[in-house]
Amino acid sequence: MQTLPSYLEGAWRTGVGDGVPVADAVTGEVVTRVTSEGLDLAAAVAYARRTGLAALAELTFPQRAAALKAAALALQERKHELYELSARAGATPGDAAVDVDGGIGTALVYASLARKGLPDHTIIVEDDPIPLGRGGTFAGRHVLTTPRGISVQINAFNFPVWGMLEKLAPALLAGLPTLVKPATPTAYVAAHAVRIIADTLPPGAIQLVAGGVPGLFDLLGGQDHIGFTGSAATAALLRSDPAVTRRSARFNAEADSLNCSVLGPDAVPGQPEFDLFADALVTEMTVKAGQKCTAIRRAFVPEHLLEEVAQAVQARLARVVVGAPGAPGVTMGPLVGLAQRDDVRAAVARLAAAGSVVWGDPAEVEVVGADAERGAFLSPLLLRADDPDRPEPHEVEAFGPVSTLMPYRDPARLLDLIARGDGSLAGSVVSHDGDFVRQVVLGAAAHHGRILVLDRDSAGESTGHGTPMPQLVHGGPGRAGGGQEEGGLRAVHAHLQRTAVQGGPHLLESIVK
Amino acid sequence: MQTLPSYLEGAWRTGVGDGVPVADAVTGEVVTRVTSEGLDLAAAVAYARRTGLAALAELTFPQRAAALKAAALALQERKHELYELSARAGATPGDAAVDVDGGIGTALVYASLARKGLPDHTIIVEDDPIPLGRGGTFAGRHVLTTPRGISVQINAFNFPVWGMLEKLAPALLAGLPTLVKPATPTAYVAAHAVRIIADTLPPGAIQLVAGGVPGLFDLLGGQDHIGFTGSAATAALLRSDPAVTRRSARFNAEADSLNCSVLGPDAVPGQPEFDLFADALVTEMTVKAGQKCTAIRRAFVPEHLLEEVAQAVQARLARVVVGAPGAPGVTMGPLVGLAQRDDVRAAVARLAAAGSVVWGDPAEVEVVGADAERGAFLSPLLLRADDPDRPEPHEVEAFGPVSTLMPYRDPARLLDLIARGDGSLAGSVVSHDGDFVRQVVLGAAAHHGRILVLDRDSAGESTGHGTPMPQLVHGGPGRAGGGQEEGGLRAVHAHLQRTAVQGGPHLLESIVK
Repeated sequence: MQTLPSYLEGAWRTGVGDGVPVADAVTGEVVTRVTSEGLDLAAAVAYARRTGLAALAELTFPQRAAALKAAALALQERKHELYELSARAGATPGDAAVDVDGGIGTALVYASLARKGLPDHTIIVEDDPIPLGRGGTFAGRHVLTTPRGISVQINAFNFPVWGMLEKLAPALLAGLPTLVKPATPTAYVAAHAVRIIADTLPPGAIQLVAGGVPGLFDLLGGQDHIGFTGSAATAALLRSDPAVTRRSARFNAEADSLNCSVLGPDAVPGQPEFDLFADALVTEMTVKAGQKCTAIRRAFVPEHLLEEVAQAVQARLARVVVGAPGAPGVTMGPLVGLAQRDDVRAAVARLAAAGSVVWGDPAEVEVVGADAERGAFLSPLLLRADDPDRPEPHEVEAFGPVSTLMPYRDPARLLDLIARGDGSLAGSVVSHDGDFVRQVVLGAAAHHGRILVLDRDSAGESTGHGTPMPQLVHGGPGRAGGGQEEGGLRAVHAHLQRTAVQGGPHLLESIVK
Repeated sequence: MQTLPSYLEGAWRTGVGDGVPVADAVTGEVVTRVTSEGLDLAAAVAYARRTGLAALAELTFPQRAAALKAAALALQERKHELYELSARAGATPGDAAVDVDGGIGTALVYASLARKGLPDHTIIVEDDPIPLGRGGTFAGRHVLTTPRGISVQINAFNFPVWGMLEKLAPALLAGLPTLVKPATPTAYVAAHAVRIIADTLPPGAIQLVAGGVPGLFDLLGGQDHIGFTGSAATAALLRSDPAVTRRSARFNAEADSLNCSVLGPDAVPGQPEFDLFADALVTEMTVKAGQKCTAIRRAFVPEHLLEEVAQAVQARLARVVVGAPGAPGVTMGPLVGLAQRDDVRAAVARLAAAGSVVWGDPAEVEVVGADAERGAFLSPLLLRADDPDRPEPHEVEAFGPVSTLMPYRDPARLLDLIARGDGSLAGSVVSHDGDFVRQVVLGAAAHHGRILVLDRDSAGESTGHGTPMPQLVHGGPGRAGGGQEEGGLRAVHAHLQRTAVQGGPHLLESIVK
């Protein structure tokens, strides 16, 4: 089986050694082998700093936006190739759409925001002169300029295309050359996307290394930006590196979190919100087989509705068809691999100590079009914890098709329970009661990067609990990593260096014009 | 000698044990002893989280601004007390003005910015609804809310009042209770300022612990904010704590850096800029005896002007009178203590390897009104490094009245030399040549948090190279810590949690109103 090449210094280069075999999520066959052994990362970083930075510096923001748009359109043209590869990683066509079309859409939104909102220049002037003297001869203003650095992007396995593009877009617009390190299990999908877009971007603007990156952080410093998506444990490890602690490389982390969804007390059976809640929960459990950092792990429902909600969700889960992506009727694919399934089963065992599995069998699942054991298949698993004070549901994350239903008594108690997640990427409140919604949103906001309110009026156009939008910030406090991505042009600004410039107003004007 | 009490849980409490003796910078007499042994920091943190957070949550932004203003006015009323204490720490009346009046002014600017720029509310709505669907039934917007946390502020010794107030102001406005840990050598000045303002602030809004804070970081997590000013080494140590790396407490560092000032090639002797440069350099060397994180450490001048600049600076340094603060004619006080003087002498010895000391004797200085050896007196020391490629001037910081003159050949070479500082808080360009200024400012911006342009037109009102302004960001990349403070209301925003809220536009309106 062929080793996956990396795209370094403008060419595809293959590491040496056996590498790590990556199995097809459906069949267990080896798809490729991943190794970075023998690749010269120092040369790649130097190439980015030299060639990439210079090429991007020659382009104004609108020109960079045009390059980004060209990359997105190239992907659009050949997206079926990415769908095919994604299927081998376990993605149904619906899952692949979230990743591939979601990524393309994100890049296009960024290109559009930049074209409309950034100047025809290479620097951004943030404000008008702020007078610092009464005579009007001395003032200050802020400029945002491109650091003399690179953007190292370490991505999670679940969204190889979207995850790459949502980091690439602001880095590219900011003028920073990118070095992508995709997660090994889906590196072949990310690499193929790079193959499609490489020629649409300036030389050195993108490189990709498949495999480990030993020593890479030793090359990074205060002008560089590191964007990470993945587990909290890895985030902590990377953030402890001297590149960050000593040399102040910028570090942004996006970590899996124990996101919650809340059903309002008004949303009794028969109300549209009752069904919206159950539908959304099942969607979040099954899209990407629940392998989403924003998926609902903790579902809080009013105590007296717990039984009815459990039944409604179970009825929907009964209609889920697990199997090979693309096989007839299949609505949920496998996990990305067998190791991931082992992890999820272990987490479910821990969660079950706090309650019980009320839907699904962690050990067994009926599968369409594939072998349930060779592929990384797992049943959706609904747990119920009648005692929401147990620690497990607030601490243990099963990164798969797993959620835990828990009761709450009143809004104050609910807010305490939400806070026990220690910070989340996304939360949702499903209710048509404005007072309740207001109380929960404002009470829970400090623990969230994003909160979705879902009701009958907005459901038709709602983008859903789990979907980050490029216009809105993505990231959350505490366990979620404490970072922020996207949020429209905020992400571009976050890649630039802000500098206060002081002097005579005329001089300031001439500097920034 | 009395032990310095700490202000915890609304009362002054004194630690046990001998503590660390703090000497008068001028006489060497012990002023106080500092110890936090036996103080209950966990109770203090709990008190802040309970009492402080609740008290501040009851106040709107304008009400918090009013409390801040009251604190500033209380300090104004009794500032002579702070001047007297500051003199014992080595501050001349001029130095104390920078610290005390500078701090009061900063607090007043913040109170004013908040009154004018923040809503009569406890949350900030950042933007108008962003449509997320074509039918207008679904949108998103961003709100900023107060985290459920505290602000821990670890300050440097050099500005016990300003350093405290520039951190307290945005935290207070953001609704976060503050726990100040002043630097031991000047903790008695900071503690006195807290004594003056404590009653003007809501209960629990401010606490101060004099001495070490073992275990404090174990109590901090993702809702808390840590603001640090001091050495890069301590910044790295604190930033490696699991509170930051694992639990994502926000961490902002402001570290000493090797700031530069640049003389333009146009600024030959006879031009006003030539004198402005020499004056500014001497000011930065002597104010606070050069103990400023923004002081000029690297002075770059055109090769052919090096000798003339050296002479002009030496002529000015010859007029500096070192001695006891307040003694007749004294223009520069001692360093904060003997240990600090030892550190500076050691650093100068390393710097001298790259060139020579052209003014001052590191071992000896004539002193007015005090004993040169009992007090921490040191001569201003000008070094000259004819080979600017030597590493020492770009790496070794002497945190005292010390600067190194270096030649540059052309702007491209100059920008390389500036970049070798690896990131600075403040830089300055002294020139009347708009093209040169533009080239240097834009070329050096990515390495700086602030750049001052100084020329004949703005000099009259210029606030100077070393003075952070509350309206402008203070902080810098790389060696300077990678953080940002001040910058007007940006600092308040940085203490709040940004959350994207999505839903029907009417619902969104009702949430934020």
